[in-house]
Amino acid sequence: MAKKACLAEFGIIQRFFARKTITNSSTRLGIGDDCALLAIPDGYELAVTTDTMVENVHFFAGTDPEQLGHKLLAVNLSDLASMGAKPISVMLALTMPNVNEVWLTAFARGFLTLAERYGVDLIGGDTTSGALTLTVQAMGLIPRGQALLRSTAMPGDFIYLSGNLGDAGLGLKITQGYYCAYPDLALNRFNMPIPRIETGQALVNVARTCIDLSDGLASDLGHILEQSQVGASINWEDLPLSDAVRNYIEITGDWLMPLLAGDDYELCFTVSPENAAKVPVSCSKIGVIEANSGLRLIKSGTIQLLKVKGYEHFS
Amino acid sequence: MAKKACLAEFGIIQRFFARKTITNSSTRLGIGDDCALLAIPDGYELAVTTDTMVENVHFFAGTDPEQLGHKLLAVNLSDLASMGAKPISVMLALTMPNVNEVWLTAFARGFLTLAERYGVDLIGGDTTSGALTLTVQAMGLIPRGQALLRSTAMPGDFIYLSGNLGDAGLGLKITQGYYCAYPDLALNRFNMPIPRIETGQALVNVARTCIDLSDGLASDLGHILEQSQVGASINWEDLPLSDAVRNYIEITGDWLMPLLAGDDYELCFTVSPENAAKVPVSCSKIGVIEANSGLRLIKSGTIQLLKVKGYEHFS
Repeated sequence: MAKKACLAEFGIIQRFFARKTITNSSTRLGIGDDCALLAIPDGYELAVTTDTMVENVHFFAGTDPEQLGHKLLAVNLSDLASMGAKPISVMLALTMPNVNEVWLTAFARGFLTLAERYGVDLIGGDTTSGALTLTVQAMGLIPRGQALLRSTAMPGDFIYLSGNLGDAGLGLKITQGYYCAYPDLALNRFNMPIPRIETGQALVNVARTCIDLSDGLASDLGHILEQSQVGASINWEDLPLSDAVRNYIEITGDWLMPLLAGDDYELCFTVSPENAAKVPVSCSKIGVIEANSGLRLIKSGTIQLLKVKGYEHFS
Repeated sequence: MAKKACLAEFGIIQRFFARKTITNSSTRLGIGDDCALLAIPDGYELAVTTDTMVENVHFFAGTDPEQLGHKLLAVNLSDLASMGAKPISVMLALTMPNVNEVWLTAFARGFLTLAERYGVDLIGGDTTSGALTLTVQAMGLIPRGQALLRSTAMPGDFIYLSGNLGDAGLGLKITQGYYCAYPDLALNRFNMPIPRIETGQALVNVARTCIDLSDGLASDLGHILEQSQVGASINWEDLPLSDAVRNYIEITGDWLMPLLAGDDYELCFTVSPENAAKVPVSCSKIGVIEANSGLRLIKSGTIQLLKVKGYEHFS
């Protein structure tokens, strides 16, 4: 047991993932010792998050490993973005059934290309034998006391999205067989989401709350409402939708998809009316926070209550 | 896919693992938002480590969940101990095939009891559906520049162990069917290892290098030798062995077991002769660092070369 336990921690992480250079000034010691060491500059707090992706649960067996490496890191960086943090470093715990060099090379390329884009160092990890299970812990810096929380929305706050809704959901449907004449954008949004790092940092001292859309707008905005003990109304007509998603809705009638589908990794945030002018112009105002609990959707002049999914249980 | 992905992150982590109180002064924000927030005091660095345990690889199916919760945290805290760090917080990524409340309650009890003992906060995590795979990331504080590394051993340094060797290895053998008249100590060392947190902190400014024994003395001391580009001689007669392990060796002749077996989670460290008087009296001197590469064992007056296992590969 113990013997099987000590797999090629060093070998694999160093061979496939270690870059020659430490690029982030916070990294005092990277891969290769019992721990990594981080220096946190004075006046900053460290934001820490972890997300796991499991084969056949979060991604299909046979998923392109380069896209998978990208997405695994992106979903973790997205959590940092939603706090307004600047990512500095990540740890990678890789459980896999065997050592497939072609797979690992592609996976590492997807992971490290995104890491380099944001100056993030991979500072450590663990590799173990088992069913394909990928866990990242991501760390970022945020000026002390400035993090964007979920629990601080106020009635009257405007609700914004950093980008389009439902493209990733459409990408999933295309992967599952839905025919779309122009599938590339939707597939790309599903397979290679972009964490809204710059937008998140731009929202510090502007937004009152922020969350990233991993589980879908109704669910994730629901977390803000629940933790802030408020409600909201959103306007269907104001939702930012791509042509492909509008076309999908026209054909299928499935207008709930953009509200319920996950994986968009856009930011949903609330802003006091006084700060509205400071919101980046690329963002869309979709509604308003209200004192009454519940999430209301205004569509074609009628108001309907959206079920706010607090969280889902193991199926 | 995306729908199945959002399991009861909040529900499970909050129901089974969230304590009412934040106990560590570094924790600015714990479980419940996109990220946790940590305050790192001025003059300190953050030590970060991650370790995964997989069912049927690192532990047997059916392992007592309370012991498993303890051990999972212990092996991660042990990495902090080996740097001389003081643990402050941990994240838990829990992948499991279903939600078994009895199992989760016991697992959480084992995990949190050890966490409380060292004032460590569980600040976040993720729960996902899949084969039982447990990943912890542990974080600790170390005065800036004072971390105990692997790469700084010097010829002439004495080599020490913080406690007995081979008890966990004997515990594994007992688990696998070896008969031992007094099995409790060995089983306890195997199932419920104690991270040497206090000893690690006491070695800051005393030891020159330090590592924790997870893979066995030959392998782990081998990491120090390799990374410091030195060799060592250790004396068989000086190895600290329990009566149960001595008895095992007498019966089986398997004197290599304490050198090769893992899971002891004692600290192995090197100290310059000038600092030898400052080493805690509970520690045992077992050998000396030498300029010649290789790990030599002196036993009954003869010298034999121990194979220094750099790392093991997937089998």
